[in-house]
Amino acid sequence: MGDEETKILAKSHPMVGGDGARSYAKNSSYQRAVMNATKEMVEDAIADKLDFKTLEIEASKTFQIADLGCSTGPNTFIAVQNIIEAVEQKYLIQRQNPNSALEFQVFFNDHNDNDFNTLFKTLPPERKYFATGVPGSFYSRLFPEKTLHFIHSSYSLHWLSRVPEEIVDSKSPAWNKSSIQCTGLVKEVTEAYAAQFNNDMESFLNARAQELVGGGLMVIVISILPNGIPMAKTAEGKIYDLLGSCLIDLAKMGLIDEEKVDSFNFPLYYPTCEEIEAIIRRNGLFSIERMKIFAPVVPGEMTFSAERSTAQIRAVFEGLIEEHFGHEFIDQLFINFTRKQLAENFLKSDDLKNHNKIDLFIALKRINTIDSYWSM
Amino acid sequence: MGDEETKILAKSHPMVGGDGARSYAKNSSYQRAVMNATKEMVEDAIADKLDFKTLEIEASKTFQIADLGCSTGPNTFIAVQNIIEAVEQKYLIQRQNPNSALEFQVFFNDHNDNDFNTLFKTLPPERKYFATGVPGSFYSRLFPEKTLHFIHSSYSLHWLSRVPEEIVDSKSPAWNKSSIQCTGLVKEVTEAYAAQFNNDMESFLNARAQELVGGGLMVIVISILPNGIPMAKTAEGKIYDLLGSCLIDLAKMGLIDEEKVDSFNFPLYYPTCEEIEAIIRRNGLFSIERMKIFAPVVPGEMTFSAERSTAQIRAVFEGLIEEHFGHEFIDQLFINFTRKQLAENFLKSDDLKNHNKIDLFIALKRINTIDSYWSM
Repeated sequence: MGDEETKILAKSHPMVGGDGARSYAKNSSYQRAVMNATKEMVEDAIADKLDFKTLEIEASKTFQIADLGCSTGPNTFIAVQNIIEAVEQKYLIQRQNPNSALEFQVFFNDHNDNDFNTLFKTLPPERKYFATGVPGSFYSRLFPEKTLHFIHSSYSLHWLSRVPEEIVDSKSPAWNKSSIQCTGLVKEVTEAYAAQFNNDMESFLNARAQELVGGGLMVIVISILPNGIPMAKTAEGKIYDLLGSCLIDLAKMGLIDEEKVDSFNFPLYYPTCEEIEAIIRRNGLFSIERMKIFAPVVPGEMTFSAERSTAQIRAVFEGLIEEHFGHEFIDQLFINFTRKQLAENFLKSDDLKNHNKIDLFIALKRINTIDSYWSM
Repeated sequence: MGDEETKILAKSHPMVGGDGARSYAKNSSYQRAVMNATKEMVEDAIADKLDFKTLEIEASKTFQIADLGCSTGPNTFIAVQNIIEAVEQKYLIQRQNPNSALEFQVFFNDHNDNDFNTLFKTLPPERKYFATGVPGSFYSRLFPEKTLHFIHSSYSLHWLSRVPEEIVDSKSPAWNKSSIQCTGLVKEVTEAYAAQFNNDMESFLNARAQELVGGGLMVIVISILPNGIPMAKTAEGKIYDLLGSCLIDLAKMGLIDEEKVDSFNFPLYYPTCEEIEAIIRRNGLFSIERMKIFAPVVPGEMTFSAERSTAQIRAVFEGLIEEHFGHEFIDQLFINFTRKQLAENFLKSDDLKNHNKIDLFIALKRINTIDSYWSM
């Protein structure tokens, strides 16, 4: 099934499962804000760009939707419901037979070790679609050819399939000894991360191009950096650096191995809008229908809270950190992390306003293979 | 999504999850023996009865397989692999274009609270199919219309959607006070269980008839009783009664509530071959292509072991018992159960040979709606 190498290497770092106080389900208000901000963009893209007259879908057939990198909800359920309502509206306008109705099948995808049990137990009981879970990395093929009509992937594609090898190679100029992330301040490190992102995006686009029918839409939402602003200067970059400094503190106290800290890196990359656009155009299998930069606002979170910040970061990164360092000092790490944020009066509201990390909404259409044949 | 009432009432009793010593995954050798016994029957049914010339499948389309009541593997993976190999063989013989190949998508279905996390983590890495999980009761619709080509359900349909209401109603003549199962010795109890089985099978057949394409096959494997032999006289019936007596012992010791024991019943029913055949014929949406009664042999388990018997029964029924009685006395219950089996020299080899509970293999074909139109 697809590129064997990608499949073997694609590493998985599931969000914290379940629905407890530390779960991703309870600590994903930022991701929810992103979704709220993109709700109208998704509706507009479907209203304007989904065309049942050219979409490869049979009469009385099922409309198949995939959410890639869904984690455990509830965000994924809200996103999917929004898509279905918009598709139904468009179908009502375009259908030939006034009695025909669409059936929907939704594929919730995430890594094999995502908490699908929680996802399935919390499925909305009133849902009007057939729900399925699809385990596996979206950098490989996940679905049979030409079976999906709409793909959604929000806040997932900045997770690389792996940390680039050079980054942890002490002999490489790209050895990222002093940091746990791509800060954008060392050229070789940035290049290694950018190359990995480029490869991963290509694998992603090629796999999706096979799975999406001609005329099918794909919506991607991803964090980006404004051109010329390195990660280290953004609020998010600063907070990751602070978390890295807490790991170094633990090493200095002799609680964790210093070499372990040196070899630890986030498999995360925030590209620029231009980088993404160039990759999509080079790939050539999708037309760009919409591209919009936006900055989501989390209601009630305009003032900074160190506790909330820790909870949100812990829900996302705990699994990744535990895998590398073990479980023993994880509580202490996050207690220190909260303290350090408070002690350094870490982010004042002004900084939050000049947050710098922004998000990108993209709507792509799978080029209809028949159209492209004639246009050759 | 299908019959609302069924959806609300269909109760779930997942097998013990994970892959620990007490898990279903490690204590399902009988179910494995059933699968081994039916391997050739499945292959023959596919070779003889699956016909790509009349099967409603598009050229270059995906062959879609569902395993209903899959639990956590590895049995389901072996069953699915066997089906795929047989379908591929038949396709090689019948395909028009020597270069065309089938893609396979497999839907693993079980209740919402099945351990899908373990299922997904143990998927065979070398599989040649796209794997998906489908949570929900198979007494409702689970898939869009006409999307499946092969349905498999082994050792699942004797689980009723619920215990019939009369069985726990102290005012009903069908009140099953003295037993935790349908022993077949009280007419009203048997009738209530049989009616529930009949309703459930009808819901099952109607849902599957919508999901299976014309010409698609469905294989059902189910435990049955020989005509005229009540459940109470079979080895399995006797062992369930012994487990019931252990619950009564706990009540006598004041550890659990006697009323709780009275209101506890297995939502299990073992029909006769004739009962099943009558339901399928009355339903009328499937042709019966194969029906074969068999008795599976578990290699190396010809002699009775009380410990193994307890482990197997615990893996299946622990969740059900815990839900009703709580967790506190569950270990003691199963320790007593093993002791009682040993003390009563419970099943001698002779009894095992005259086991009486047998299994039924059925292969059904969804009547092609076009054919049936012309034959009207």
